Amino acid sequence: MTIPLRIGIAGLGTVGAGVVQLLAENRDLISRRAGRPIEIVAVNARDRAKGRGVDLSPYRWQDDAAAMAQADDIDVVVELIGGADGLAVALARKSLAAGKGFVTANKAMVAHHGAELATAAEKAGAALKYEAAVAGGIPVIKALGGGAAANEIVSLFGILNGTCNYILTEMETKGAPFADVLKDAQALGYAEADPTFDIDGIDAAHKLAILASLAFGTALDFDHVETRGIREIEKVDIERAAALGYRVRLVGEARLIDGRLVQRVHPVLVPLAHPLAKVTGSLNAVVADGNFVGRLTFEGAGAGAGPTASAVVADLIDIARGETAPAFGIPAASLKRVETGDHEDSIGRSYLRVAVADEPGVLADLTAILRDCGVSIASLIQRGEAGDDEVFIAIITHETKLSQTADAVRRMGALSSVLTPPMRLDILS
Amino acid sequence: MTIPLRIGIAGLGTVGAGVVQLLAENRDLISRRAGRPIEIVAVNARDRAKGRGVDLSPYRWQDDAAAMAQADDIDVVVELIGGADGLAVALARKSLAAGKGFVTANKAMVAHHGAELATAAEKAGAALKYEAAVAGGIPVIKALGGGAAANEIVSLFGILNGTCNYILTEMETKGAPFADVLKDAQALGYAEADPTFDIDGIDAAHKLAILASLAFGTALDFDHVETRGIREIEKVDIERAAALGYRVRLVGEARLIDGRLVQRVHPVLVPLAHPLAKVTGSLNAVVADGNFVGRLTFEGAGAGAGPTASAVVADLIDIARGETAPAFGIPAASLKRVETGDHEDSIGRSYLRVAVADEPGVLADLTAILRDCGVSIASLIQRGEAGDDEVFIAIITHETKLSQTADAVRRMGALSSVLTPPMRLDILS
Repeated sequence: MTIPLRIGIAGLGTVGAGVVQLLAENRDLISRRAGRPIEIVAVNARDRAKGRGVDLSPYRWQDDAAAMAQADDIDVVVELIGGADGLAVALARKSLAAGKGFVTANKAMVAHHGAELATAAEKAGAALKYEAAVAGGIPVIKALGGGAAANEIVSLFGILNGTCNYILTEMETKGAPFADVLKDAQALGYAEADPTFDIDGIDAAHKLAILASLAFGTALDFDHVETRGIREIEKVDIERAAALGYRVRLVGEARLIDGRLVQRVHPVLVPLAHPLAKVTGSLNAVVADGNFVGRLTFEGAGAGAGPTASAVVADLIDIARGETAPAFGIPAASLKRVETGDHEDSIGRSYLRVAVADEPGVLADLTAILRDCGVSIASLIQRGEAGDDEVFIAIITHETKLSQTADAVRRMGALSSVLTPPMRLDILS
Repeated sequence: MTIPLRIGIAGLGTVGAGVVQLLAENRDLISRRAGRPIEIVAVNARDRAKGRGVDLSPYRWQDDAAAMAQADDIDVVVELIGGADGLAVALARKSLAAGKGFVTANKAMVAHHGAELATAAEKAGAALKYEAAVAGGIPVIKALGGGAAANEIVSLFGILNGTCNYILTEMETKGAPFADVLKDAQALGYAEADPTFDIDGIDAAHKLAILASLAFGTALDFDHVETRGIREIEKVDIERAAALGYRVRLVGEARLIDGRLVQRVHPVLVPLAHPLAKVTGSLNAVVADGNFVGRLTFEGAGAGAGPTASAVVADLIDIARGETAPAFGIPAASLKRVETGDHEDSIGRSYLRVAVADEPGVLADLTAILRDCGVSIASLIQRGEAGDDEVFIAIITHETKLSQTADAVRRMGALSSVLTPPMRLDILS
């Protein structure tokens, strides 16, 4: 049991350097818990000369990451390059084909190629692990795959993108508009120079697709995650939501309804008493409802070098211990392909924000449309901003079939007194 | 891989019946996730005739639980009898000696005999699992032993007893005194007829000792958990705490300070913004701070048939998959024996409640004592109850060495104008 687990690390960005540091700093403790030492044999990155704040001199520098897949002295390849395709997936295929364990933090790759890679891993009898790909340091992959494994998961939701949660929380506490907060977040390093993947919900959608597959035993289906980001959230939405007892959060939700899979990443209104309303700043949280365990909530840091490295090394400890359950909890061949369900078929409440011209009869028109669509109103706030011709009407609906609410929003948008396309955010129940 | 895992269940109370029901209801899903069927072979309880709401006819009735340890057709014994000693521990010893896996929900037994049993398990190459012993359905044993295993855990705390949390929450929301709420809780089945183990903190102390051993790699040391229950919490404490921005919670805390282990179960004041302040009713929560992952929070149902059965079956799935890491994360022989630290040596803030006679000079006496002990005051509320000769003074201290605060409390208690022994509750930071 004292044969070390020998690893190669491909990719030495923030997370890669964090893994090197963690394995050095907690070396003894990790050996004890893993039952044997975990030793870095080789490292690889694009630019050898770059300073990374960690001592890489003890490790072999491997110019070609793919060579790690062939190296006789490497048991597990750790991929921290990123990207759905290209180098990362080529390395995964080669490593698994060579019977090596493969640990990755790459959500895009797992969301797109997870089933193929899980199949390859099973064929080779190798481990494929990706705890770090979802919710950073929170061990939610292990929790769903192991701790909650006795349960049929009924529904699953979570705050899966720390950048968006940071931006929404800042908008909430500072009363600042989206664009300003984004700019600050970029300056502070909380958002990327190109923030598209985060703020358009794509990153959260990758993670949600992975969680859904694991939780429901369904085939990965990233293409059918209905995805909407937070660019269109305005100051007024945050303010009105607060006035009505809610917070705005970007939430990923997955449910199996009559055997159809609904996956959405959407900005939603979360009631103040809901566990996700309390998740602030760059934290992540995942909530799973099981048919025996009830509701489980997991919260922690969703990104950053330390938390992500913690998840990567937890996977390595699993492998060192010989724990190699199938990547998605069940054999890849048993993952069910299911139809996509339509969220609009379900019943729910919504928040509507309608910007209207300050003229007589507008409210009568809007409420008539809601009545005609069978949508009844739970709360309504009409308040103009001082000195403005534009008035915001915020409406919370009672429970309605959401397609009816969608229909009402469409009809409202066609009114000449409605100045911009009305905004609908559903309310998390 | 289709050889079933054959189990015997000893103890058919609420949890035992829950396990039987869960294994039946989620049978196919469990087989897929475990890689093979999990089959009940035999069951045992004191009273065969008792109705339990589950069909036991397919299983062999075993009058003598201990016989399961010898049965050739049983791979794993599931112990749901309870009690630190007696039948339960005898069954554990016999089962492990015979090389059988052993799964238990018995916190008292694990807290008292965990090290001995872990050693026996390692010697026999058998699995010992106890996820259900701590925090019901929350997979916190797996999270600390696996998901967070790469981290040095810096501190650990949690709400570990649902009965106490239910009582404190009810006192908070209904403004009712302890004795009334306890009586209601007993009538509703949330508290036992003999509530001692719960309300005196012993149950939480069992769980804390287990968590501390796992998190810090230290030898189990239940005897040195400083334990205090919630009997002495009065309505006035809940009210004053709320007025000052806090909630009262029974919290288990464990820290390693300069290599000394401090373990306490105490009622404490939790700031409203703290994750544990939001844990209401019979829920449990565990918070762990790791040196790389940062703060992880796990929340869910801490008791009940469904959640506890979920944890028991998660252990069975682990065993079916061949996952048999040491019971406390590292080999039992490596668990360090450490000295006991004194919580009073640390720095912290406290809440003091002093019931005084309504006469001149009392506040001057109290504040002089605090000054003499080097304790400075952050907030103070003096408010008498209408028509009463007794006045309650509630004080929040600034950060002080807690032994100084303790000294001040002792001196206050000696004043003739102080009517009952002053109450001190520390503030969770």
